[in-house]
Amino acid sequence: MAVIYDRVALIGLGLIAGSMGLAMKRAGVTGEITGYARTEKTRETAARLGLVDRICDNAAEAAEGADLVVLCVPVGAMGAVAEEIGPVLKPGATVSDVGSVKQAVIDAMAPHLPEGVHFVPTHPMAGTEHSGPEAGFAELFDNRWCLVVPEEGTDPAAVDRLEDFWHALGANCERMDVEHHDLVCAVVSHIPHMIAYTMVGVADDFRRVSEQEVIKFSAAGFRDFTRIAASDPTMWRDVFLNNKTATLEILGRFTEELFALQRAIRTGDGDHLFDYFTHTRDIRRGIIEAGQDTDAPDFGRGPKR
Amino acid sequence: MAVIYDRVALIGLGLIAGSMGLAMKRAGVTGEITGYARTEKTRETAARLGLVDRICDNAAEAAEGADLVVLCVPVGAMGAVAEEIGPVLKPGATVSDVGSVKQAVIDAMAPHLPEGVHFVPTHPMAGTEHSGPEAGFAELFDNRWCLVVPEEGTDPAAVDRLEDFWHALGANCERMDVEHHDLVCAVVSHIPHMIAYTMVGVADDFRRVSEQEVIKFSAAGFRDFTRIAASDPTMWRDVFLNNKTATLEILGRFTEELFALQRAIRTGDGDHLFDYFTHTRDIRRGIIEAGQDTDAPDFGRGPKR
Repeated sequence: MAVIYDRVALIGLGLIAGSMGLAMKRAGVTGEITGYARTEKTRETAARLGLVDRICDNAAEAAEGADLVVLCVPVGAMGAVAEEIGPVLKPGATVSDVGSVKQAVIDAMAPHLPEGVHFVPTHPMAGTEHSGPEAGFAELFDNRWCLVVPEEGTDPAAVDRLEDFWHALGANCERMDVEHHDLVCAVVSHIPHMIAYTMVGVADDFRRVSEQEVIKFSAAGFRDFTRIAASDPTMWRDVFLNNKTATLEILGRFTEELFALQRAIRTGDGDHLFDYFTHTRDIRRGIIEAGQDTDAPDFGRGPKR
Repeated sequence: MAVIYDRVALIGLGLIAGSMGLAMKRAGVTGEITGYARTEKTRETAARLGLVDRICDNAAEAAEGADLVVLCVPVGAMGAVAEEIGPVLKPGATVSDVGSVKQAVIDAMAPHLPEGVHFVPTHPMAGTEHSGPEAGFAELFDNRWCLVVPEEGTDPAAVDRLEDFWHALGANCERMDVEHHDLVCAVVSHIPHMIAYTMVGVADDFRRVSEQEVIKFSAAGFRDFTRIAASDPTMWRDVFLNNKTATLEILGRFTEELFALQRAIRTGDGDHLFDYFTHTRDIRRGIIEAGQDTDAPDFGRGPKR
């Protein structure tokens, strides 16, 4: 494949950046990849694993002269990094980020970016419950969605180029308006994570059921929640703090619905429960049909012993 | 393997009974297997798939002369079946059920069972999001837990024999007190299902995010909920109606916790969120260590296209 960006800088070297580095090398669409991470330990690990070509001592050094700079730090840290790298950005460079919320990131970053730089926020919807540079792998983005959220007036060529880049890394791209992005992600990702965290917390805190029992019998449904709830705490703290409006709105709807079902249990309204549970099956069918999951009958099964 | 029960009757021929029939044949630990299901369509399907040896016209006919009778109907239907088969049960026979709640099932069935019959309730913690006889497969119980909930005073030999039977079907057995069973299952299974149903219902009902978007981007966390929420509506309606006390207690705890987290989002209390999310990681680690799930970094990934 032809080179899309001659020099790429990754700021933050966790799961996403690590996977990007490996996916870029797999694709062969970039020249030198520089990288920077806040902690020395992460920088050393990234160097050892060869996630990038050159580890720098600070974000500005990594970003200087880069054609593409991607901020891969928690959402709450994006603004400070943008402030640091703003002065050294090459004219015509593209700056992007991989944050899970977009309005807050745009608000935090945009003021620090100079004229003549293209700012194209993205959100690769890929991840695992693991975090850190060692969790990265080249296939992370294969067949996953990368949401591209350009502001009005952004140079179309710069947006197209970044989409070509993500395609080369294995992802499918979809453009989305920023407000809608934050709402969609609250529904399909942020609130499910919040609920999973809560359920796992309740189980752990429920002294009349031992932790051993919770673990032993987790395959009955609970296990899927623990996988979601093992995700990176810093990342998710920042997601919730920075997508407050959408999160609170959907949480409100969620508790309304939950209370209606709870009331049906209390009053013995079997019809309400049955109708509700029947209805939710349809969405599952849609997901199977869309190829977003398999229909294999192995739900809830642990590895063979 | 030696024969454990010469004649086994399965009342209800859905996912669980179908899998039991196939697992019994695989194990070779039973003689003739009779079966009955309420609808003609299910009986025909079970006959066609060879899930049992002989399909009967009613529950009493299937149960008559059996050494083991297992009720595999929704929890709300257990009492009526017990009443029907009570008069024809063979002295010394074992009667069991596979319901996901136990106190309500015991209350419904026990009055109808004659003296000289051993009543040993069980709960094989296995299932998929599919239901009906066609969903059954012989490996369903392999390495899964079967909770055995005998009442005090039950003949120990009858309990041991039923455990041998479940071991032969591939399951691991654990004895549990009835009240504790209903509480543990509410934590690890019933409430997670309730929450998953609710979340899927909210997503579907949230008109500002299209169903297409929900389906398309489901892999970001939501997908695991839809799998849980696709489970059999009749079964789950009955579970919630019949495990009211434990369900409402834990739902109460869940909403308390959720409100605390919601408040932390509203007030911007990042420390609360961070500490909570850090804490829930430990449970996940325990599940990995206990061999109840794999640590493979493929969370949220759809099938390759």
